[in-house]
Amino acid sequence: MAAMKVHGNVFSTATQRVVACLIEKDLDYEFVPVDMKSGEHKKDHFLCLNPFGQVPAFEDGDLKLFESRAITQFIGHVYSGKGTQLIFENPKKMTIMAVWMEVEAHQFDPVASKLGLELAVKPMLGMTTDAAVVEENEAKLAKVLDIYEARLAQNKYMGGDAFTLADLHHLPTVQVLMGTQCKKLFDSRPCVSAWCAEILARPSWAKVLAMQANN
Amino acid sequence: MAAMKVHGNVFSTATQRVVACLIEKDLDYEFVPVDMKSGEHKKDHFLCLNPFGQVPAFEDGDLKLFESRAITQFIGHVYSGKGTQLIFENPKKMTIMAVWMEVEAHQFDPVASKLGLELAVKPMLGMTTDAAVVEENEAKLAKVLDIYEARLAQNKYMGGDAFTLADLHHLPTVQVLMGTQCKKLFDSRPCVSAWCAEILARPSWAKVLAMQANN
Repeated sequence: MAAMKVHGNVFSTATQRVVACLIEKDLDYEFVPVDMKSGEHKKDHFLCLNPFGQVPAFEDGDLKLFESRAITQFIGHVYSGKGTQLIFENPKKMTIMAVWMEVEAHQFDPVASKLGLELAVKPMLGMTTDAAVVEENEAKLAKVLDIYEARLAQNKYMGGDAFTLADLHHLPTVQVLMGTQCKKLFDSRPCVSAWCAEILARPSWAKVLAMQANN
Repeated sequence: MAAMKVHGNVFSTATQRVVACLIEKDLDYEFVPVDMKSGEHKKDHFLCLNPFGQVPAFEDGDLKLFESRAITQFIGHVYSGKGTQLIFENPKKMTIMAVWMEVEAHQFDPVASKLGLELAVKPMLGMTTDAAVVEENEAKLAKVLDIYEARLAQNKYMGGDAFTLADLHHLPTVQVLMGTQCKKLFDSRPCVSAWCAEILARPSWAKVLAMQANN
């Protein structure tokens, strides 16, 4: 039995973030599906793992964690000797990488998540897309991607000179947006476009997508 | 001349977060006011410090940082021997604290910031408060504070058994909300109420408020 457990749903971007991290680190884990359609994530046995009732929740032995980026940072630091090195040993490089992890969390993700909801989730559920929300957030995304373009013109990866959590955290939402009209905002910026192509081509990410396809 | 510089505005909650951290750590720093009314944060010399054009930006020698929570974590780790210890040395405690830092950033702050805008900023600027946004976010805040109440019934502080960044990150937004109708949501929960009273009474926070009063 694997010591680590991910309680989540393969269609949840936050779950995918943690699973991609575990695969990059070449760690054994057990995936425990949470049936969100039946509201399992709002029931007591799940709320004991995450009081906010959101996937994923994570266990490593008796340590119980939630919040996807706290989980990936735990894995990155505690299992630094395994698989892909997703953090920097050098404190200054690590500090700069931490800035770009915050950028993903506070500048990119809120905008990308709203666009994903309007342009991917709502159409799938037969709901009406709010054009005003799309317009407002596409403008915001374009500004963020302008800054990413400048960053990636100077650095091969978002966090510095190697693939790290600062890139990995983007994977699930970038994947969603590349299936929408927002793809053009990525494609029109050469460095952003090359970065997207490279991170989406990682074998770990192919395995995450395969989990969705097999579901 | 102080080696550290904070470029910011004393009325910005993100700036206050960084200044409170520096005061807790008893570190010398230079405060460089950014005149946001004249749009200084969108001009080239500031965009060199933070391409997103948001305060604060931070310099420590030749290291340039932005994103308030990346700055506080840098200060907490690099200056761990100075002033208040705002992080845990114990890796397991530090991991749990990191979860609650993510909770502040992703569960508390988005809701608290929307309420602060509607109930504090808009009235000050003579703009009309959106009652629907207030209602929706007060309901969300109540749910978050229910979870905080349970957390604080088991732990004196948000991150564990000592005051850490997981508490400090809340200070600016809690201060704003305590001056609005949302105060009742904090006051009606005994553990949350005691926690707010204690963290808001820290001498470091009084110094941050004094900077506002003197401005």
